[in-house]
Amino acid sequence: MSRSFTASIIAVFATPETGHFLTRQVAALELDLQGIPGDRHYGFTRHAGAREKWYEAGMEMRSGRQVSIVSVEELAKIAAAMDVPEIKPEWIGANILIQGVPDFTNIPWGARLFCGTQAALVNEGDNAPCRFAGREVAAQYPGREGLDLLFVRAAKNLRGIVASVEQAGCISPGPVRLKIPVQNNWAGGTLL
Amino acid sequence: MSRSFTASIIAVFATPETGHFLTRQVAALELDLQGIPGDRHYGFTRHAGAREKWYEAGMEMRSGRQVSIVSVEELAKIAAAMDVPEIKPEWIGANILIQGVPDFTNIPWGARLFCGTQAALVNEGDNAPCRFAGREVAAQYPGREGLDLLFVRAAKNLRGIVASVEQAGCISPGPVRLKIPVQNNWAGGTLL
Repeated sequence: MSRSFTASIIAVFATPETGHFLTRQVAALELDLQGIPGDRHYGFTRHAGAREKWYEAGMEMRSGRQVSIVSVEELAKIAAAMDVPEIKPEWIGANILIQGVPDFTNIPWGARLFCGTQAALVNEGDNAPCRFAGREVAAQYPGREGLDLLFVRAAKNLRGIVASVEQAGCISPGPVRLKIPVQNNWAGGTLL
Repeated sequence: MSRSFTASIIAVFATPETGHFLTRQVAALELDLQGIPGDRHYGFTRHAGAREKWYEAGMEMRSGRQVSIVSVEELAKIAAAMDVPEIKPEWIGANILIQGVPDFTNIPWGARLFCGTQAALVNEGDNAPCRFAGREVAAQYPGREGLDLLFVRAAKNLRGIVASVEQAGCISPGPVRLKIPVQNNWAGGTLL
């Protein structure tokens, strides 16, 4: 079972060349099932890193991180918590800036985002803020000390989600329909 | 954040040839990142079908259904509800039979299953029972009418999950460690 509502895509971004962490605003993203061609996160698979401390570093694994999506409302909250004027999506490597989804980072896993005429993304979970993104934010405000670590703390549960492409297509600013799976509560919580 | 506990893999199954729906017990599954080589669900992508009525039929899409997992406890519940002696995992195309996870079908999306020395699977959601599986169950009990549709009703929330391979490796009977993501409740439910 699932339920739908509509929000807005405000802007889209891509890395100018593979190897860049920062993204740059573009008119549209042409997605195939591996992600954004030319992007550093393009591919069905990737190498395990610090986020997957349970895997051997560098081991090939399923990606689940093809596309990064952040929200206008949550970037404003992070900026306020850090006492800086703004956090730009480009600084933290985001590909899509969305608006109109309350508590965006916590939308359920498996939520689908239908963008434009055909492209569809599936939520693979919240994107834990890392010091690497924090360093890029800090670099924008050279007068302030410790913004890299402050970002990691301030952006917890506000740094958006990572997603995989479920159906190829083109994504540009405009309406996006979210389809939220309504999952039963798991009764096994006492095992944890 | 996530929490872990251990359960058991009782048996594993594969399709004898691509094109077969029924599976057959095997000693072990050698998984790569696309699933079970030779299986009809092998691949990073698949064609959209009746489950994805929001996509054009036959369109290439992300798979998310590489591996099917069912539980001893839930198959027994389905059999009891249908008043038949048993439901075998092979009849409904399952690849892994698990035991010791309460409410298995409802474990959260994104839950990981670490099997054996290396293979890891990620939960892509509950597997909605279809009439196709129901027909295979009905074929085992030729004296009974309407078991195909009865299966679809009786197996709701009990038919197990579908999963993708996150790390390649070998899966055989033995312990399996489940890592359950503890997600915040989404505050946007009033939109639905």
